[in-house]
Amino acid sequence: MKWPTDRLGPLRYPSPLNLSQQDDDYVANFVDDDARVIVDGDWHQLQRCISTGGTPEYFELSGPRANLFFQPERVRAAIVTCGGLCPGLNNVIRGLVMQLFYHYGVRDILGVRYGFQGMTVKYGGTAIALTPEVVENIHAFGGSYLGSSRGPQSSVELADFLQRRSINMLFVIGGDGSLRGARAILDECRNRGYEAAIVGIPKTIDNDIEYIDRSFGFNTAVEKASEVLACAHVEARGAMNGIGLVKLMGRYSGYIASRATLASGTVNCVLIPELPFDLHGRHGFLTHLEMRLKNRGHAVVAVAEGAGQHLFALERPETDASGNPRLNDIGVFLRETILDHFARKEIAVTLKYFDPSYIIRSASANTEDNIYCTELAQHAVHTAFAGRTGVIVGMVRNAYVMIPLDVVTAHRRIVDTDGPEWLAVLQSTGQAITMMNDSEPETGHRIQNNEIQGM
Amino acid sequence: MKWPTDRLGPLRYPSPLNLSQQDDDYVANFVDDDARVIVDGDWHQLQRCISTGGTPEYFELSGPRANLFFQPERVRAAIVTCGGLCPGLNNVIRGLVMQLFYHYGVRDILGVRYGFQGMTVKYGGTAIALTPEVVENIHAFGGSYLGSSRGPQSSVELADFLQRRSINMLFVIGGDGSLRGARAILDECRNRGYEAAIVGIPKTIDNDIEYIDRSFGFNTAVEKASEVLACAHVEARGAMNGIGLVKLMGRYSGYIASRATLASGTVNCVLIPELPFDLHGRHGFLTHLEMRLKNRGHAVVAVAEGAGQHLFALERPETDASGNPRLNDIGVFLRETILDHFARKEIAVTLKYFDPSYIIRSASANTEDNIYCTELAQHAVHTAFAGRTGVIVGMVRNAYVMIPLDVVTAHRRIVDTDGPEWLAVLQSTGQAITMMNDSEPETGHRIQNNEIQGM
Amino acid sequence: MKWPTDRLGPLRYPSPLNLSQQDDDYVANFVDDDARVIVDGDWHQLQRCISTGGTPEYFELSGPRANLFFQPERVRAAIVTCGGLCPGLNNVIRGLVMQLFYHYGVRDILGVRYGFQGMTVKYGGTAIALTPEVVENIHAFGGSYLGSSRGPQSSVELADFLQRRSINMLFVIGGDGSLRGARAILDECRNRGYEAAIVGIPKTIDNDIEYIDRSFGFNTAVEKASEVLACAHVEARGAMNGIGLVKLMGRYSGYIASRATLASGTVNCVLIPELPFDLHGRHGFLTHLEMRLKNRGHAVVAVAEGAGQHLFALERPETDASGNPRLNDIGVFLRETILDHFARKEIAVTLKYFDPSYIIRSASANTEDNIYCTELAQHAVHTAFAGRTGVIVGMVRNAYVMIPLDVVTAHRRIVDTDGPEWLAVLQSTGQAITMMNDSEPETGHRIQNNEIQGM
Amino acid sequence: MKWPTDRLGPLRYPSPLNLSQQDDDYVANFVDDDARVIVDGDWHQLQRCISTGGTPEYFELSGPRANLFFQPERVRAAIVTCGGLCPGLNNVIRGLVMQLFYHYGVRDILGVRYGFQGMTVKYGGTAIALTPEVVENIHAFGGSYLGSSRGPQSSVELADFLQRRSINMLFVIGGDGSLRGARAILDECRNRGYEAAIVGIPKTIDNDIEYIDRSFGFNTAVEKASEVLACAHVEARGAMNGIGLVKLMGRYSGYIASRATLASGTVNCVLIPELPFDLHGRHGFLTHLEMRLKNRGHAVVAVAEGAGQHLFALERPETDASGNPRLNDIGVFLRETILDHFARKEIAVTLKYFDPSYIIRSASANTEDNIYCTELAQHAVHTAFAGRTGVIVGMVRNAYVMIPLDVVTAHRRIVDTDGPEWLAVLQSTGQAITMMNDSEPETGHRIQNNEIQGM
Repeated sequence: MKWPTDRLGPLRYPSPLNLSQQDDDYVANFVDDDARVIVDGDWHQLQRCISTGGTPEYFELSGPRANLFFQPERVRAAIVTCGGLCPGLNNVIRGLVMQLFYHYGVRDILGVRYGFQGMTVKYGGTAIALTPEVVENIHAFGGSYLGSSRGPQSSVELADFLQRRSINMLFVIGGDGSLRGARAILDECRNRGYEAAIVGIPKTIDNDIEYIDRSFGFNTAVEKASEVLACAHVEARGAMNGIGLVKLMGRYSGYIASRATLASGTVNCVLIPELPFDLHGRHGFLTHLEMRLKNRGHAVVAVAEGAGQHLFALERPETDASGNPRLNDIGVFLRETILDHFARKEIAVTLKYFDPSYIIRSASANTEDNIYCTELAQHAVHTAFAGRTGVIVGMVRNAYVMIPLDVVTAHRRIVDTDGPEWLAVLQSTGQAITMMNDSEPETGHRIQNNEIQGM
Repeated sequence: MKWPTDRLGPLRYPSPLNLSQQDDDYVANFVDDDARVIVDGDWHQLQRCISTGGTPEYFELSGPRANLFFQPERVRAAIVTCGGLCPGLNNVIRGLVMQLFYHYGVRDILGVRYGFQGMTVKYGGTAIALTPEVVENIHAFGGSYLGSSRGPQSSVELADFLQRRSINMLFVIGGDGSLRGARAILDECRNRGYEAAIVGIPKTIDNDIEYIDRSFGFNTAVEKASEVLACAHVEARGAMNGIGLVKLMGRYSGYIASRATLASGTVNCVLIPELPFDLHGRHGFLTHLEMRLKNRGHAVVAVAEGAGQHLFALERPETDASGNPRLNDIGVFLRETILDHFARKEIAVTLKYFDPSYIIRSASANTEDNIYCTELAQHAVHTAFAGRTGVIVGMVRNAYVMIPLDVVTAHRRIVDTDGPEWLAVLQSTGQAITMMNDSEPETGHRIQNNEIQGM
Repeated sequence: MKWPTDRLGPLRYPSPLNLSQQDDDYVANFVDDDARVIVDGDWHQLQRCISTGGTPEYFELSGPRANLFFQPERVRAAIVTCGGLCPGLNNVIRGLVMQLFYHYGVRDILGVRYGFQGMTVKYGGTAIALTPEVVENIHAFGGSYLGSSRGPQSSVELADFLQRRSINMLFVIGGDGSLRGARAILDECRNRGYEAAIVGIPKTIDNDIEYIDRSFGFNTAVEKASEVLACAHVEARGAMNGIGLVKLMGRYSGYIASRATLASGTVNCVLIPELPFDLHGRHGFLTHLEMRLKNRGHAVVAVAEGAGQHLFALERPETDASGNPRLNDIGVFLRETILDHFARKEIAVTLKYFDPSYIIRSASANTEDNIYCTELAQHAVHTAFAGRTGVIVGMVRNAYVMIPLDVVTAHRRIVDTDGPEWLAVLQSTGQAITMMNDSEPETGHRIQNNEIQGM
Repeated sequence: MKWPTDRLGPLRYPSPLNLSQQDDDYVANFVDDDARVIVDGDWHQLQRCISTGGTPEYFELSGPRANLFFQPERVRAAIVTCGGLCPGLNNVIRGLVMQLFYHYGVRDILGVRYGFQGMTVKYGGTAIALTPEVVENIHAFGGSYLGSSRGPQSSVELADFLQRRSINMLFVIGGDGSLRGARAILDECRNRGYEAAIVGIPKTIDNDIEYIDRSFGFNTAVEKASEVLACAHVEARGAMNGIGLVKLMGRYSGYIASRATLASGTVNCVLIPELPFDLHGRHGFLTHLEMRLKNRGHAVVAVAEGAGQHLFALERPETDASGNPRLNDIGVFLRETILDHFARKEIAVTLKYFDPSYIIRSASANTEDNIYCTELAQHAVHTAFAGRTGVIVGMVRNAYVMIPLDVVTAHRRIVDTDGPEWLAVLQSTGQAITMMNDSEPETGHRIQNNEIQGM
C-alpha cells in the first residue's frame, strides 16, 4: 500500500463549514478522511494486480473534513511564492486568503515577500498582512503579488521564521527545489517539536510534476505559446522560404512545445528534450526542413529549450541561482545551424527567431487556470486544516488528492514518446516519426567540430 | 463486463501509419485492440467489487490499430454537423479531414451541408468535397463551416444517402438527439446489410454527456461566459444597489454557470437546474439578495436557463424543432421578480440583465478546445478505421475511449450537488448552502398567483 | 471671432512644471495662452472667408501654461462620473488623480460616489479621498470606480457641496445632460461669487458630441461591437437562410453601428437613425434582405437603437431617468417584422438576435482609449489650472482644445449621410444606396395596422 | 501653392457608382475633383499667411469622382506588398480587391507574390489572380497573403512587368524605399509612354511618414507593444529590484515606444531616437534608474531600437537588404550596461529583457486598423480611377487626401520633443524632462573605453 500522507494528529475540532454527510439532500458533502482514488486506471494491469493478490495503489482524496486538527481561531497562516513567475500565482494567493478568511474564519494571514528569501533573518521583516480587500483584484494581473526569488535558504532560518511568529500553517507555492525546501523546513520543525502544517502547491510552467494532471499556469502558458506560434506562421508565410523558429520553455519536458503545437495547428516540426534527433544525414532534421521548404515554401519549427542538448559538447558546469544546470541555448544554435546549412546550399531563406519565455510566464491566468488555481487553493486549506503536512495538493485524473512532498519530487514527469499524446502531436505536425539516422543520435562533439567552427 | 463496442469485422489490413509496437524506441506506439481503462477510480468501491468476486467495469481505449478493418483507398467518408452551434465544430471538421487525408490517405471526403437535413432527398445534392486546402483555416472561425440544422430526419432517407453514395464512414458531430439519429441510421444500414462505420463526436455546450470529462467547446463557453460575468460585475458596481443578472446556457445541467462562476470570482449567487430554491421566506433567494445589497451595495447573479423551472406553472406543452421542451424563461422571470420585490420594499436598485447565449456559442475554440477537438477528430478516424461503429469517442479521465451510442445517450450528466465541484462553486460565491425554507421548494402555482399577477 | 472660453482671472502663479518656452532644446514646451487652431479645414471655404474679409473661426488650444490661475497647494479638486457606463471612465479618473498629484502637487482630491446624486444633501457624505495608490490599477477594469447615476440634481445643492467643502476644481465626466448640469453649477457658483474651475470631459458612447474627433470609449465600443457582429456572421452562416440581427447603441447617431460595420467587414446592411428607410415595396429593406438571402444564403444586419423610429406610431410619451425619451425597440420590432415577412412568404429562415449593449459599455478601455483618456485627463487638469471654467476638453483634428460647455451641448453630432464616412460604410456592406420607395419614408401608422397586428 | 498631384488625363467616363452630387438627399456624394483641405491648422500662422498676401497650402481630397479617367472594363490591376510585415497588409489587399471588384466592376486583379521581386524576370510568373472569394477571410490573419520581400529591383524590369501584362493600375503597399521604387517605375513608364496609375499606400510600422495622421498597422503595433510593456511590469514587480527592459521598433522615430508607454501607464522611462541622453553623471539615465529602484523597488524601461545610437562608436558600415543602415543593438547594450552598473555598485537587481518585434508586426489588424485599411483601400481605388498617379493616399487630420510620392518621401516624421505628444508621455512616465548633464550628450567613444571593456 502506498502514499498515505503525514498527519499532525487526530481531528478534534468540528469544522465551521456547514456541510452535509449524506447524499441527495441538496447540500454539498464533507469528504471522508480515508477517501481514496486508485493511481493507475489501466484495466489489464489492475486485473493482473488483483489476480496476484496485490492491492491497487491509491492517492488520498483532499477536501473538507467534518472535523479538523486546527482550531481556526488559533491559526496563523503564511503564504510564500518561490522561483520563476508562472501564470496563476496571484489566483492561488487570492484563493488561499479567501478560503482561510471567509470559510474557516482565519484572520491572521501573512504574505511573505520575495520567496524563501523573505523568511530569512535579513529580509524577514518585510512580510505583509493579507486580507480579502488586499487580494480582491490581484488575479487580474500576472506575476506574483508577493514577489518571488530563486535559490535555497537555510531551513533553520526558515523554521525560525515560523516559530518566532507562531505560524502554524505554511503554504509554499513553488517548484521542485522549493518543495524540497518545504520538506526541509518540515524536518527542521519536527526536530524542534514545532507543529506546523506545511502544504505545497506545485508550480512549474513546464508541467513536469509527476502524477498530477497538469500544473497550474500550464494551460495559460500553452495558450500564450500557441499565439506566438501563430506569429511565427505569419512570418514564415510572409517571405519566400520563410522559416519561423520558436524556442519555448521546457527544460526536461516538452509539454509546452507539444501542446502549443497541437493547439496552433501550424507547426511543421517540434523538437523536445525527450526525443533525440540528428541534424544531418538522410533522416536528419535539416534534411526534413529542406524538403518541407521545397514542397511548401515555408516552415514553422518549435523547439523546447531542453531539446537537442546532446548536440553540444559534454561539459556543462554552470548552474543558475536555483541550482538548475544552465542549458546550452538550442534556439540560437538552431538558428545559426539552419542559416549556415542553407547558406552552404545557396538556398535563400528568411528565418525569424522567437524567444517569448517572459511574455508567456508573465501572463495572467486564463479561464481554466483561474478555476484550477481557485480549487487548488481551497483544497490546500482543507488539507492544512485536516492536519496533513509535508504534502502537495493536485488534480489526478479529475480528483483532488494529496501527495507527500518526497513522492512528488522523486521523479520528473516527461512526455511519453510511446504514448498517445506524442502521437497526436506528430499527426498534427506531419513531421517524421523519427529524425535519427541510426539508433544513436549525433553528439555534440561531432557538431562542435563540423558545424559551429564552420560558421 | 460492460461496454464493449460494435465491430464491423476483423482487422485485416495493415495500417499505413508507420508506428511501433514496442516501448522505449522513441517511436509512438499503436494501441492494442483490447486496451481498456477502468470506469470508476474510487479505491474503496474497487476493493468492494474485488472482494465480492466482481470484475471492474471498463471502457475500451481508442487509438491507432496496427491492423485496420477498412482499406484506406476504398473509404468514402462523410461529415455532418447537427443541432445548435458550439465552439470547436470547425476544428473537428478540420481535424477529421486532415487525419483522413494525410495519415490514412483517404481522398474522398464529403461535407454534408446543414445537418441531417442535408442528407435528405430534398437537400441531398448540396454536399461538398472537403480537402486540406478547403479546411486549412476554418478553425480560426466559430460556427460550422458546413452549416447545421435542428430536428430529426427519416433514418431511411439518411441511410439511403450513405448507400447511394457508397459512403462507408460517417462522422456525426451532434448532441443527444443527433447521436440517437446516428444510432437509427446504423440500425437501418444493418437491416439492409450495408456496412458503415458510424462514429459520433458528442457536441453539447451544456457539457451534459455522461461519462466523458467534458464535451468539446465547453471550455470555450466557460471562458466566454466568465467574460460576461465580469461585465455584469462592472455594471453592478457602477450603480448604487446595482444588480448584474446573467442568464447562461444549461437546460438540465448547470455546468457552464458553475464553472464560469468559479472562473470569474465575482459572482455572489449562482442558480442551477440541479438545485431547487425558494424565492421568498427566510431562506429564499430574494432574502439573500437583499442582505447582500445591504452589506455590500451590489450583487452579481448567474442563472442557468434550466434553473427554477419549478417556479412556473406546470403545463409546458411546447417543444422546439429538436424536440426539446421549451423552457420558461427564468432570466426574464427573475429580472421581473427582483424588480418587483425591491419596488415593493421601496429599495432603489439598478438591475442590468444579460442574455449572451449566441455570443458564447458562436465563439471560435480557445486553446484547450483547439487541442481537444483535434485529438477527438484523430481518435474518431482511428476508431472508424478499426471498424468500430455505433460509438462515440471522448476523453474519460484523460484517456480517449470509445463508448457505445446507446450507453452514452442513456442518461444525462448533471452537477452533483453533493460533490466537490459544487462545493468549490459555493465557496467561491459565498452564497447560502441552501435557499429552501423547507425540504420542498416553492412551486409555480403559488408564484403564478402571488408574484406574476402583482406586476 | 468665436469660442473664447471663460477665464476665472489672470495667470499669476508660476507653473510647477519644469518645461521650456523655446524650441529645439529637447525639452517639452509650455503652450501659449492664446494658441489656437482653426475650426474648419476646407480650403475653398477658407478662401471664401478670407476674400470676404472674414476671420476664420478657431478653438483655443489646451495644454500646460507657464503661469497658473491656481496655487497648487490651495487646490481642492473633486471628480464625478455621471450617466451610463462607458469604457475609459476609470482611465480618466486615474489620469486626473495622477496628473493633479504628481505634476501639480495637489494632495486633496475627492471622488464623488454615484454621480451628481453623490453631491446632494442626502448622499453627500459618501465621497472618498483619491490618491495614486487608490487609483493605480483601476484602469484595468471597466465601469466607474466611483459609481454613477442618472438624472439631474438641484444645482443649488451641487454648488453647496462645492462651497461647503471648499472645492475649487470640479471635473465632470458625463454626457449631454450632465454637461448642462455642470454649466448650471457654474452659474449658481457665479451667482454666489464662488470661484471654481468646472471642467467637463464629455462622455458619450454614441460619439454624438459636436466638433470633437471622437468621444472617449467610442473606440473600445466599436471594437466590442464588431466582435458581436462577427458572432452574428457566424450564426448567420451556420444555418440555411441564416440571419444575424444586431442592435447596437446609437440613439440619434449611428456611429457605433457604422464604424463597427466597417471594422467587421461582414455586415450586409446597416440601419442608422440618420437615414430613413422603408420596410416594404420595391426598394424596401425587406425586399433587399430577401434578395440577399436568395443570392447568398445568409445575411447580417446591424441596426442602431435609434434607427427607424419613423416606423412607429407617433406618440412617445415616456422618458428615462436622464430625461431622454424612451425609444421604441427597433431591434425587437425588426426581428418580429422579418420573421413575419418570411413566414408569409413561406421562406424558412433562422434569425438570431443580439442586444449586446451592456457587454459593450462595461468593457475596459482598449489601447487607443487608454491613451486618449490619459491625455484628456492631463489636459483637463492643465485647463483648470489655467483658470478656464465652463469648458470641456477634447481632441479636434488631432489637437487638444477647450470648448465652452454651451457651445458643445448646443447641437448633437450625427453621421453625415452625404459624406465620405457613410460612403465607406455603404461600400463595405454593399447595401443599396437608398432603401426608400419615394422621397418620403413609410410611417409608423401604416406599420401599426398592417404589420404588428398581423402577428 | 503646393502639392497638386499628377493626372493621367481628363475624366471622360461616368462613374459606375450610383452616388449623388447634392446634399441632404440621403445619398452619399461624389467628391469634387478640386476639393482641398488646408495643410496647417494653426490659426495664428494662417493669419500671418493671409496678412502677407499668401495662399494657404493645401492637400487634394481623395474620394469618388463623378467621372473617371479609366473605363472599368479596361482596367487590369495589380497589387504588391513590399518590405517588412506590418499589421493590416491583408486588410488593404482585401479592401482593394473588394472595391475594385464590387464597386468599379474590375474583374482582372493580379496579386504579385513576394514584393517587387515577384515582378522581376526571375520570379514574374508567380503572380496569382485575386477575387473576392480568395481574399474574403484573409484579414483575420496577420502578415501578407501575397508575401513580401526587401530590397530594390530594376525599375526597367518592373515597368516591363506592367507593360507586358497590360497592367494599368498598380497598388504598391510599402515603405519609404518601396514608394521611391514606385516613383521610379512611374518615371520608367512615362519614358516609354506607357500610361499607368501607380498609387501607394504607405506602410511603416514606425509611423514615420510625414504629414499623415498615422500609418496603417501602427495602432495595432501600439496595442501589442503595450501588452508586452505590461508583461515587463509584471516581471519587474515580481522580483526585488526588478527591472523590465523592452526594446521596441522605431529606427528614427519613437512613436511606438511613446504611444505604447502612454497606453500602458506602467513605464517609468522611455528612450527614443529623437532625444539624446547620457548614461552616467548626475542627470544620466543610470542615476535616474538607480533612484527609481531605491524609491520603488522596481522599474520598467522602454527603448526604441534607434535610441542612443550616439552611445556607440561612430563607424556603422553595414546596411540591410532594404538599404537601411544596421543599427547598433541598443537593447542588448542597455541590458549589459545596466547589469554592469549595478554589479559595480553591488546592488542586486533582476533584469528581464524583451525584444518582441516579430510578435508585434505579425499581429492581425485591430479594430481601428481594420477600418483604416479598408478606407485606405477604397480611397486608393478612387484615386487610381480618377487618373491620379505617383501619389499615396493617407489620412490627414481626419480627411483622406492624396500626396505626391516625392513629397511624402522627402522627409521622415519624428516625435516633436517640444510638442504636446511628448509632454503627455513624460507626464505618464514621470521620468526626468532631460537626462543630459550638459547640452551635448555623451558619445560612443567614451562609452567604448569606459563601459564596454569593463564587462
